[in-house]
Amino acid sequence: MFDIDADPAQLRQGIEQFYAWQMQLLDDGKVEPYAQTFAEDGSFAANAHPAPFTGREAIAAAAGKATRALAEQGVIRRHWFGMTSVETTGHSNVVRTRNYAVVFETPRGGAAKLLMSTVFEDVLVRDEDATHGWLVRERRVSRDDLAA
Amino acid sequence: MFDIDADPAQLRQGIEQFYAWQMQLLDDGKVEPYAQTFAEDGSFAANAHPAPFTGREAIAAAAGKATRALAEQGVIRRHWFGMTSVETTGHSNVVRTRNYAVVFETPRGGAAKLLMSTVFEDVLVRDEDATHGWLVRERRVSRDDLAA
Amino acid sequence: MFDIDADPAQLRQGIEQFYAWQMQLLDDGKVEPYAQTFAEDGSFAANAHPAPFTGREAIAAAAGKATRALAEQGVIRRHWFGMTSVETTGHSNVVRTRNYAVVFETPRGGAAKLLMSTVFEDVLVRDEDATHGWLVRERRVSRDDLAA
Repeated sequence: MFDIDADPAQLRQGIEQFYAWQMQLLDDGKVEPYAQTFAEDGSFAANAHPAPFTGREAIAAAAGKATRALAEQGVIRRHWFGMTSVETTGHSNVVRTRNYAVVFETPRGGAAKLLMSTVFEDVLVRDEDATHGWLVRERRVSRDDLAA
Repeated sequence: MFDIDADPAQLRQGIEQFYAWQMQLLDDGKVEPYAQTFAEDGSFAANAHPAPFTGREAIAAAAGKATRALAEQGVIRRHWFGMTSVETTGHSNVVRTRNYAVVFETPRGGAAKLLMSTVFEDVLVRDEDATHGWLVRERRVSRDDLAA
Repeated sequence: MFDIDADPAQLRQGIEQFYAWQMQLLDDGKVEPYAQTFAEDGSFAANAHPAPFTGREAIAAAAGKATRALAEQGVIRRHWFGMTSVETTGHSNVVRTRNYAVVFETPRGGAAKLLMSTVFEDVLVRDEDATHGWLVRERRVSRDDLAA
């Protein structure tokens, strides 16, 4: 059983590995495995959306729609997380993170550009059965252009 | 007592956590807590400034001025560190780091842009009383546009 | 003897330190030390090149040519890795990584720009005699503009 308070370096590396894997799934258009990185009742809220997506089905549907639109346009998106701050919560299986995230976008044959700058605030739950040991229970995304 | 030579992974995670926290303070306009992340006699030198800022008061004054200007313009800045190289120094409580750093800037309702690319070279001192265990004793920032 | 399976946090920190050092060498134009970060028979393949570079001499020659061109133009490049996923392989001294990488470019006196977005897939081999314990045996770089 992983003890989230025992070793901050293991905690951080596990979360970084989880995020790298999760966002590579999304950017590679692997919509179903991506949706599985959320808890069954996981939610995805954003200041760009009127209401949160709740549950894996809704999250997969939203990701699938975005993926198909990008494929049609011949565009690759890369989600980068950085400046990740990890906070334990007093619960043995829950951590909070606050991350900067940017999206770089490249059209086929064209120039890469910075699409947006955002902040991702997550509640992660430990799940030993999950591929990298974590699931997203709550994600709140704040686009800087809408928050400034 | 933290032993900086004992465990490179703990050392690195602690520094990454410190930097995430420090730069989020700055970008959130929390000027006083940000100034407290420097040693009392800490210095901030930059190839964009004629002379270093020395001491928390001077560092807070400079950060406060920048923060107010950005707020007036309705602009959010995000400082990202990356490619961090950590070097122990033979002193039990001092490390050096060399980091790439970029600043992304987003105006309210506008497009995010890459503002600048820089290198941050720090001397960090271990302080068990500091929030995340480190203080910046010396920071030297080199903007690539002035160094190229 | 470093055990790559024993401690994921040490593994990750070592690879991050290696990458920071390696790409700072390249960006600082230290061509020979950079070439030494590859295995003697290391290869560098890219979807932008018709054939891979193989061996340190070929890698140094290519890096040297790029370095001289940038110096003549008064341009600084910064290679950033991010979203690094580390995978052990069942071999005691080999890991695979998949990294996003972007290049930021700044001309003397000019504005920084995002030059390109790429994916770096590496096979790294453990070498206790190497400066940071790792050598690149195979690197495959995929530019998003050519892959989209």
